[in-house]
Amino acid sequence: MPRITGVLSPVVTPFNADYSPDAARFVRQCKWLVANNVGLAAFGTNSEANSLTADERIELLDKLVEGGIDPARMMPGTGCCALGDSVRLTAHAVKAGCAGVLMLPPFYYKGVSDEGLFRNFAEVIERVGDARLQIYLYHIPPVSQVPISLPLIERLLKAYPANIAGVKDSSGDWKNTKAMLDAFAAEGFDVFAGSESFLLANLRNGGKGCISATANVNPAAIHHLYLNWKSEDADDLQANLDAIRGAFARFPMIPALKHAVAYWSGDPGWAKVRPPLVELNAAQSAALIGDLEERGFSMPGLSAA
Amino acid sequence: MPRITGVLSPVVTPFNADYSPDAARFVRQCKWLVANNVGLAAFGTNSEANSLTADERIELLDKLVEGGIDPARMMPGTGCCALGDSVRLTAHAVKAGCAGVLMLPPFYYKGVSDEGLFRNFAEVIERVGDARLQIYLYHIPPVSQVPISLPLIERLLKAYPANIAGVKDSSGDWKNTKAMLDAFAAEGFDVFAGSESFLLANLRNGGKGCISATANVNPAAIHHLYLNWKSEDADDLQANLDAIRGAFARFPMIPALKHAVAYWSGDPGWAKVRPPLVELNAAQSAALIGDLEERGFSMPGLSAA
Repeated sequence: MPRITGVLSPVVTPFNADYSPDAARFVRQCKWLVANNVGLAAFGTNSEANSLTADERIELLDKLVEGGIDPARMMPGTGCCALGDSVRLTAHAVKAGCAGVLMLPPFYYKGVSDEGLFRNFAEVIERVGDARLQIYLYHIPPVSQVPISLPLIERLLKAYPANIAGVKDSSGDWKNTKAMLDAFAAEGFDVFAGSESFLLANLRNGGKGCISATANVNPAAIHHLYLNWKSEDADDLQANLDAIRGAFARFPMIPALKHAVAYWSGDPGWAKVRPPLVELNAAQSAALIGDLEERGFSMPGLSAA
Repeated sequence: MPRITGVLSPVVTPFNADYSPDAARFVRQCKWLVANNVGLAAFGTNSEANSLTADERIELLDKLVEGGIDPARMMPGTGCCALGDSVRLTAHAVKAGCAGVLMLPPFYYKGVSDEGLFRNFAEVIERVGDARLQIYLYHIPPVSQVPISLPLIERLLKAYPANIAGVKDSSGDWKNTKAMLDAFAAEGFDVFAGSESFLLANLRNGGKGCISATANVNPAAIHHLYLNWKSEDADDLQANLDAIRGAFARFPMIPALKHAVAYWSGDPGWAKVRPPLVELNAAQSAALIGDLEERGFSMPGLSAA
């Protein structure tokens, strides 16, 4: 099976009024994203994945598959603080036929050694024990506070070349992404930028795409740049993507994404977030939508049901 | 029922060679701690609690109760990233008759608002819906990176005066502990210092005790200061505690605690830690034990089985 590439979205997770996950809305949203040529990095940071129990994640993934979405388009997040949870979620994703998994390091303890992180990933790989397993390491130090270093990647690639498939670099530091590309891309390690801000630079340097919050709301335009990165107007396409992302980045990202989905789908329930997050207030909501409409932004094809 | 007070230990969790929790060793250790007048803040930071699944925590707590240990001596950690896990663990602890629970805030997202944290704790309290629930808020910003602010405590105390019982302050900042004491101790909010380094100062200012890593290894001496804090030699007792803690603090704390238990119990299996942590190396182990023995330290009454 060829590796997954292109643009992926850490799909925002819809909640009912009582904070329970709303599987029907979730499947509908994922179908819309796939129809816009965006893969599903479900259960990422922007999915509030760590605010979900392991059981909730498993049930939602099953609903996607039952809903007829191709698991070859899926790279669910499966990295937890507890080894047992990471193993369970990862094994389930592999069995479901997912293209890969996006794996956070255990993130409670800070300042841990590469040796300890190596043992964590090695244990997951050994316990899952499935040749199909494709792990994308998730480097997001601003949130996890536990980085994935280059020496750790090197050691994992050497020990498990068939299972270590790539990385999502959400450091926000292009120099780090470039260093990962220079060190490992040639040997088949697939680097995804953590946002579309670095999509063009990543593709020009041998990367495979991006996994971006704003792919939840602007999928078609981001995919368009992915397809046309060698075109003459690629830098203009990138600038347009940056402007839309900038409009969202003025606000807390997850509530802003959910508010946009709520607004353009006509389904206000979409705005709900789980604690410890809070929804945008009225002024923030108005400012976000006002700014986006002024830019001609919309989310075509989205509907309430 | 009177509130739990005194010295508590975030009990280190023993693992078998395959990383599974060893319930028999765990019960034995907890009995030794209780016999040394130390309460059981099981599933704390030093327990590697966030490296355990919810199921593993529930089974270990059940084993303690089945083992005949009084749940009135227990304050298990129950705060998780996912609301559903926090509710489940908290409800289980209350049903088991535990004196209280030590509750971390959800710790994946950083820079979250007090409003979001309030909603988290409020949802847990409402869903558990049990008048017996006694919550001790867990303020440990060096690890969780998500602080419990004074305004948040004030708001929670006002909304849930019967359920918000106190705090463990592991900020390492005496000024913060003092501010909590000054603001809330008079209204029955019980402040526990996060280590015995601040035990004497805490008791002199209206606090109720400490919950400390090194209570795992030095329980009797810490309890002795708790009992004798008004005595003339209290400052000397404090200085002695500080010296022993200092010997451990030269090394990564959790592996050092486990190595000491392994050494003095004669049970080398105790040294095992889960990823992402790693055991002390041979040089560290020798330096730790050498330093402690030079100081006349030992762990009387500990045995391998």
